[in-house]
Amino acid sequence: MESKKRHIVIIGGGFGGIATAKALKNTDADVTIIDRLNHHLFQPLLYQVATAELSPGDIAAPIRSIINKNPRIKVILGEVEKINPDKNTLQMRNGQIIPFDQLVMATGAQYNYFGHEEWAEYAPGMKSVSDALKVREKLLMSMEQAEGLDDSNKRKSLLTYVIIGGGPTGVEMAGAIAEVAGNGTKHGYRNIKPEEARIYLIEAGPRILNAFPESLGEKAKKMLEKMGVKVLLNTPVTNIEKNKVYLKVGSIETINIIWAAGIKASSLLDTLKVEQDRSGRVIVEPDLSIPQYPDIFIIGDSAHRVDKKGMPLPALAPVATQQGKFVGNLIAKEGKRKTNAKFVYTDKGTMATIGRAKAVADIRGLKFSGFFAWALWSFIHVLSLIGFRNRTRVFVEWIWNYFTYKRGVRLITDRSGCMHCTTYEKLHKELLEVHA
Amino acid sequence: MESKKRHIVIIGGGFGGIATAKALKNTDADVTIIDRLNHHLFQPLLYQVATAELSPGDIAAPIRSIINKNPRIKVILGEVEKINPDKNTLQMRNGQIIPFDQLVMATGAQYNYFGHEEWAEYAPGMKSVSDALKVREKLLMSMEQAEGLDDSNKRKSLLTYVIIGGGPTGVEMAGAIAEVAGNGTKHGYRNIKPEEARIYLIEAGPRILNAFPESLGEKAKKMLEKMGVKVLLNTPVTNIEKNKVYLKVGSIETINIIWAAGIKASSLLDTLKVEQDRSGRVIVEPDLSIPQYPDIFIIGDSAHRVDKKGMPLPALAPVATQQGKFVGNLIAKEGKRKTNAKFVYTDKGTMATIGRAKAVADIRGLKFSGFFAWALWSFIHVLSLIGFRNRTRVFVEWIWNYFTYKRGVRLITDRSGCMHCTTYEKLHKELLEVHA
Repeated sequence: MESKKRHIVIIGGGFGGIATAKALKNTDADVTIIDRLNHHLFQPLLYQVATAELSPGDIAAPIRSIINKNPRIKVILGEVEKINPDKNTLQMRNGQIIPFDQLVMATGAQYNYFGHEEWAEYAPGMKSVSDALKVREKLLMSMEQAEGLDDSNKRKSLLTYVIIGGGPTGVEMAGAIAEVAGNGTKHGYRNIKPEEARIYLIEAGPRILNAFPESLGEKAKKMLEKMGVKVLLNTPVTNIEKNKVYLKVGSIETINIIWAAGIKASSLLDTLKVEQDRSGRVIVEPDLSIPQYPDIFIIGDSAHRVDKKGMPLPALAPVATQQGKFVGNLIAKEGKRKTNAKFVYTDKGTMATIGRAKAVADIRGLKFSGFFAWALWSFIHVLSLIGFRNRTRVFVEWIWNYFTYKRGVRLITDRSGCMHCTTYEKLHKELLEVHA
Repeated sequence: MESKKRHIVIIGGGFGGIATAKALKNTDADVTIIDRLNHHLFQPLLYQVATAELSPGDIAAPIRSIINKNPRIKVILGEVEKINPDKNTLQMRNGQIIPFDQLVMATGAQYNYFGHEEWAEYAPGMKSVSDALKVREKLLMSMEQAEGLDDSNKRKSLLTYVIIGGGPTGVEMAGAIAEVAGNGTKHGYRNIKPEEARIYLIEAGPRILNAFPESLGEKAKKMLEKMGVKVLLNTPVTNIEKNKVYLKVGSIETINIIWAAGIKASSLLDTLKVEQDRSGRVIVEPDLSIPQYPDIFIIGDSAHRVDKKGMPLPALAPVATQQGKFVGNLIAKEGKRKTNAKFVYTDKGTMATIGRAKAVADIRGLKFSGFFAWALWSFIHVLSLIGFRNRTRVFVEWIWNYFTYKRGVRLITDRSGCMHCTTYEKLHKELLEVHA
């Protein structure tokens, strides 16, 4: 007697979801991946889209293309509204009910404004292509506006950049902005002197890159300062308005505010009604399933799992990828599932780039910085991209940028022709208002 | 006694404006280029952005970068509201008055809906990056929606594409869409069978590519038909609604409607109060200046100038480029201007690509089609792009596409996170409504 075909559902086409799908290539089950967007995004390089070095298409790939070789895997573009863990079903936003035998939630994270959701409008985070393009447009537009003003006092706040949060994203953004804004003349802005750009990296805690060894955090800080970035430690942000960031002491006037200060897990997890940590991550079992529901797994930024030292695993691509692979292998074959499987994270190292030929890396306890760390960072990131096409494009772009110092994708896209939005015109007006 | 420095203003950073600026590299005057956008766009390849083959950044370049070598040339990002030809000044939208000694208007054209402006919302044209992205999102989204529907009858109108206008843009769009929609399985759409895609190219006149020799138009039509495109000649469109195109006889149900049916010159020309033709182009003198105002020149799509046979020059990049060069050289040196200069267009040929290894070309009377025409088309277009970076990127992308049949930039960008717009969500809903 043959039973109905088993159905595995994966929510999310990020690092975790794609790794799970790949590990399921020889499964005996039907597999469905659901994502709100049609593409997988290589988030670690998203800051380079925001700073006009790469095109969105260079670091994204359609989910359908990635898993196309496997006829077992189906892709659905849509949003999941809630999970019903007792019935083994999930409900889509359009009302459709999808049953599953096993569910892998790789739903990622979003920026956490710690109860100040109103800040999101003035200080966008960077999680999607759309976020990055928004930051890019603001950045370029403020330089255009500054170029047009003869009074250097008026230019001041247009050329001020505040990045909130001293993790890898904040550090990489600050470095990249220092290179764009500090090289205005190279990009054809003749009125903008390099020394006019003021870039602040603001961190509430006592150090930047706190997931890295302390010496590397210190090194990164020195590198940033040498590039002209003002690094403010122990400086919590108390309020954000349209054109102002309020600190404990004083405030900074600018419309260029970027949020990189913390994340929280996807709110879809709340519908499971199980134990979550302060950031909304679900506390998972050693095999990454959730208590009482052995067929529901949570991986990546959505999962709270501790390492050997009792610290929660960081929200990084390698963690999500390894967890996806682990869960995929665990559930690939029906009836063959190990009962006491346990996920162990292999930390291959952490690295962050700070700018041109400048990076810090900690590879299994080996700490280094400078050109070699940067070359290694570049090499690993190019190799980690999905597909030959994206690898070639990013590689060519980086080589070109290295020799010319130019950033190729300095586009302010005209959204005024767009059906439902007038970002470009509004942005223009906003900037003019602020500087009226 | 030294007089005040002469000031040349160029409006528009398209082919004409950039060619003028380049010809002015040794001028004794100050030069200002004004554009509403910060980038020059290689419009002949815009349809490849709309069909997910190229990234916007591949065919656009910041105007500042292009003219950066010449310290005499200043770039202003902004919109000109009107010209005052009697006072030799122009007024910006923000109220600023800019005086000029010579003015070159390279203001281009926009789509002409022949009095039915309300059609623009349902049948976008393709003039800007934003237009092309809008078309791309609609195209990909309709395929995603179709993939999710099991009933092939419901899929029908989602997989129907109507391109209005049989000029080069319409022909190139129809061919490219046939390749995307007809190759659904290659792109991971498993439910979409190639024969389900219905692509209509609709032309009001008796033939397509009417600027080409008749035999090539006939050849192009046959090539398109072989690819599955239905070419309807002598078929004017009588009305367009959200999800329907009305023809003289019958109607076609779809939301995928693209307008490529005609252009009209920029409305800024109307402020000159001089003689214009039916498309709004200004009738210019042999030296491309306008009657009574010898210091105001009109070039490119905005100018009405006849060739030897008495036909107006076509709205093509080579015409704009040659005219820009001509005017730039004419006014470069003060006092040295020829009094009876006359612009003569050198027609180096016309070509249009229809699809993979398919194109038609007419080079100085030599007509050919097929692989060789396509290779030549590709070669000339890569060389015509501005800058090494764009050339390399487009070349690599084409080679990759040629061997893999894949389109790399199949991104539906999430604009729901966008400050002022929710295109993505609305598009989703719209499609669902239409197919509810």
